[in-house]
Amino acid sequence: MNNLVEKLLQGDRRSAARLITLIENDAPEKKDILQQIYPYTGRAHVVGITGSPGAGKSSLVDELTREIRREVLKVGIIAVDPTSPFSGGALLGDRIRMQEHATDRGVFIRSMGTRGSLGGLAQATRDVIRVLDAFGCDVILVETVGVGQSELDIMHHADTTLVVLTPQAGDHIQTIKAGIMEIADIFVINKADLGGSGKMVTDIETMLDLSPLVNGWRPPVLTTIAIDHQGIPELWAAIKRHKAWRKENKAGANRERVRRELAEIIQRYLYQLISRELDERFEHLLEKVAERQLDPYSAAMDIIKQSWKGGLP
Amino acid sequence: MNNLVEKLLQGDRRSAARLITLIENDAPEKKDILQQIYPYTGRAHVVGITGSPGAGKSSLVDELTREIRREVLKVGIIAVDPTSPFSGGALLGDRIRMQEHATDRGVFIRSMGTRGSLGGLAQATRDVIRVLDAFGCDVILVETVGVGQSELDIMHHADTTLVVLTPQAGDHIQTIKAGIMEIADIFVINKADLGGSGKMVTDIETMLDLSPLVNGWRPPVLTTIAIDHQGIPELWAAIKRHKAWRKENKAGANRERVRRELAEIIQRYLYQLISRELDERFEHLLEKVAERQLDPYSAAMDIIKQSWKGGLP
Repeated sequence: MNNLVEKLLQGDRRSAARLITLIENDAPEKKDILQQIYPYTGRAHVVGITGSPGAGKSSLVDELTREIRREVLKVGIIAVDPTSPFSGGALLGDRIRMQEHATDRGVFIRSMGTRGSLGGLAQATRDVIRVLDAFGCDVILVETVGVGQSELDIMHHADTTLVVLTPQAGDHIQTIKAGIMEIADIFVINKADLGGSGKMVTDIETMLDLSPLVNGWRPPVLTTIAIDHQGIPELWAAIKRHKAWRKENKAGANRERVRRELAEIIQRYLYQLISRELDERFEHLLEKVAERQLDPYSAAMDIIKQSWKGGLP
Repeated sequence: MNNLVEKLLQGDRRSAARLITLIENDAPEKKDILQQIYPYTGRAHVVGITGSPGAGKSSLVDELTREIRREVLKVGIIAVDPTSPFSGGALLGDRIRMQEHATDRGVFIRSMGTRGSLGGLAQATRDVIRVLDAFGCDVILVETVGVGQSELDIMHHADTTLVVLTPQAGDHIQTIKAGIMEIADIFVINKADLGGSGKMVTDIETMLDLSPLVNGWRPPVLTTIAIDHQGIPELWAAIKRHKAWRKENKAGANRERVRRELAEIIQRYLYQLISRELDERFEHLLEKVAERQLDPYSAAMDIIKQSWKGGLP
């Protein structure tokens, strides 16, 4: 077994940090590392935190961490910024606020920025979750910056997803697309002191009345004032309730998640294989398309017919 | 041939709009449509416009359109917002400004929001470019909202990429990641009246002095005040210069682009095939991973060995 992995399983922080860097950099040993770690994963509860910019997600994560630490549970925090190839200054800045947690050996904090393709970022996030899981984190909080498509992809890796909104700032439910509302296991109306939160709760509850329940879980709608720790114990309790519920009802969701992961890993491997073979086995087709003698859709289908042993589209 | 495609090739606007909608909705006839259109594409010059939020990209597109229309060329505008599943209100709002162009039969404007996966959005953008190309647009301006990874992906479809910055608003070149600087064929410092643009030009020129030229093209650094049309004729002249240069030097870039497109289309088809087969041929492996008896990386490799006739990773 890889020496770093051995140390990781003993709870060594530096090994955790180094393994995450290897994964982020897509190092050659990545596949081996993940294979070795896999049997030690599946224990942590992963909480995804998404929502509109300015909703106070970072403060919420801070206070939630403080709350969870009261139970002496080990917490991992992954802050993901998929929006910008500009440096992740804002997120790191936020994280500097977390002085209290930074010196707490029971909290492991990591920021992730844009690396490779976006699909790659969601996959890298899943892999980093696995490292922190094997590292022994009981709860892993995954915070994203905005609510774009990549954030939705990342939330697929969460066991419990919090959608954080504010009563103001244009977060009226009619402006929020279905994709966001559907992934919420718990709604959090943060900055509840701003006013208007009562109406927002009513609006979301009304919407939920009209929506079919997914597997019987009705997302609670909670109000918080994160910077004052108000509503945070109730939020943590709701997360634990959802965790317990999920344990009873997870079979279908888990299968779906595994299916998705397998398809993604296979697709990724095949992309590398195809890119290589386009310069070798299929160079004549590539040339034909480049010279516009053949359209790319027919060429692609031809290549699949020649390379894929299973059924065709 | 599809009736809509026939009408498209005759320059019918409504057919263009309907074909784009079919493509965006991933309609079953999409593949046929794109195959039929393909031979009539490759004529338009595609200009990508990206840069930091608030850099005035929309105004720049407006004024560039006005400039191009002076030569009685047909212009297509595709405004892409990949950042948010929230409704594309902002972009559409911007577009309402374009009253002048909206009634101009020589300008076709289309907004695109997040649909399906992000890879999907970049691919959909390319397909919409093809429709407007076959429709007879001489120049297609593709404007993105921000500078995230998906914007970079979309810019791969441009023949000429403009990176738009402002002299203020934190756009100091040391904060701009390499990914952005490398895709620029032309730098545009917009809002040059804000002051500080001289220093910004010098900084970028210094950076270019230190960077190796890609195929011998050195990106010019232009200053504009889009809302006053200042610098716009010079920008259009620079785009035409780049177009001419590209014509002389495009062989390698074109091959790379075709390779990328083929790999993406194949990958997309295969993802559908794999997802289906995971419920059929490979259900036993899926079950094993779901029960954590097997790690997903080994399962993926096993499936590839059984399904892919070519070489392995």
